[in-house]
Amino acid sequence: MQKKIVLASTSTLFGQQYLEYLEPVIAELFAGLGEVVFIPYARPGGISHDDYTHRAAGAFEKKGIRVKGLHTFEDPLEGIRNAQAFFTGGGNTFLLVKQLHDLGLMGPLAGAVNAGKPYLGCSAGSNIGGVNMQTTNDMPIVYPPSFSTMGLVPFNLNPHYLDPVAGLEHMGETRETRIKEFHTQNNIPVIGLREGNWIAMNGEDITLEGAHNARIFLAGKEPYELPAGERLSFS
Amino acid sequence: MQKKIVLASTSTLFGQQYLEYLEPVIAELFAGLGEVVFIPYARPGGISHDDYTHRAAGAFEKKGIRVKGLHTFEDPLEGIRNAQAFFTGGGNTFLLVKQLHDLGLMGPLAGAVNAGKPYLGCSAGSNIGGVNMQTTNDMPIVYPPSFSTMGLVPFNLNPHYLDPVAGLEHMGETRETRIKEFHTQNNIPVIGLREGNWIAMNGEDITLEGAHNARIFLAGKEPYELPAGERLSFS
Repeated sequence: MQKKIVLASTSTLFGQQYLEYLEPVIAELFAGLGEVVFIPYARPGGISHDDYTHRAAGAFEKKGIRVKGLHTFEDPLEGIRNAQAFFTGGGNTFLLVKQLHDLGLMGPLAGAVNAGKPYLGCSAGSNIGGVNMQTTNDMPIVYPPSFSTMGLVPFNLNPHYLDPVAGLEHMGETRETRIKEFHTQNNIPVIGLREGNWIAMNGEDITLEGAHNARIFLAGKEPYELPAGERLSFS
Repeated sequence: MQKKIVLASTSTLFGQQYLEYLEPVIAELFAGLGEVVFIPYARPGGISHDDYTHRAAGAFEKKGIRVKGLHTFEDPLEGIRNAQAFFTGGGNTFLLVKQLHDLGLMGPLAGAVNAGKPYLGCSAGSNIGGVNMQTTNDMPIVYPPSFSTMGLVPFNLNPHYLDPVAGLEHMGETRETRIKEFHTQNNIPVIGLREGNWIAMNGEDITLEGAHNARIFLAGKEPYELPAGERLSFS
């Protein structure tokens, strides 16, 4: 089976319902499937695994798709092996990555997705589709045993990418400055993925989709804009 | 000797020169000293250790204080042992913490400061004065062997603290949301330190100083504002 992967910048656009703008994407990605395994470990705002799974289930029920939380399996590795497809919600990337590594699930999840089981990630759930989590925006609230992630795509993502705000008198670093600092220490390409955009991988073909350009950061080069519809290829 | 520690939110206020607003603080903290050892490892924007030390030196020369970069010592541990005082500049906290741990300097630096050698930190240099670096705003561009820091004060700092921006349609987490997520996993108090504020420790007395209130986050409680001039005590 060919790979079917969607890595979205955010779950929710301003003024919309949870996953609303992604409804056509979800319909196509999970077409014909009865159940999706939800990975709730990123726990936005500290929400419980059960409550988070319930929130996700609401959005999928409209499509006639059941949602089962990975935390409800006695053996989550079995849960991954037997799953038809996956959805990883946003929240804190450090929490998500620590949990996946602690439970020994990062590799098996990557293996299942690379073998063709459809995967949707939002925000932190998209970060783990990259080579490593080192371009997350999140606070390091826990210490993961490794920053490495699934490497479904041969680059890193910066979700919720935010352009510098003109006139802001706050002296904290801009997102662009942070990503450039990443590139003083790493060579991995980084996709600044604005809210309303997602990356779609079908087979080996990777494209930018959604409402905006993405900002592309390559080590040692000036960042540039890539329009939606274009292929993401940096070889 | 009693402890003399200043942990500032930022090095630079909007529209001002580097360290300008901290000049009276620097004059008092380092009064009578001829040399300060500068810790350049946080490398803002990837600046070299030499260039960063040069930038810091410019601000101290006005006071007749020499600045020597810790990276220029053949044995940085000896550099710490022989130093009269320290200044750690801002930049990337992950880079700073990794370097201090890799070189075995985190404990010796804490020991020297706790023994009474004056310490100034800005931004990342303030984060390392807390219990751990887990309330930094920075991007995890490198993987430190531990998130633990010097614990000069019995709480954590969030420098460049930023209030939620009214009307912003960006769906990334607010700073307050991130700190609350930290408290789903940790019990350490967190000081949201706005630009223009600093924490001053003299002996065992810790106070908030500067232009604004600080926002205080305690696990399981509603955050509250603390006015400048007040003691920071959470027992």
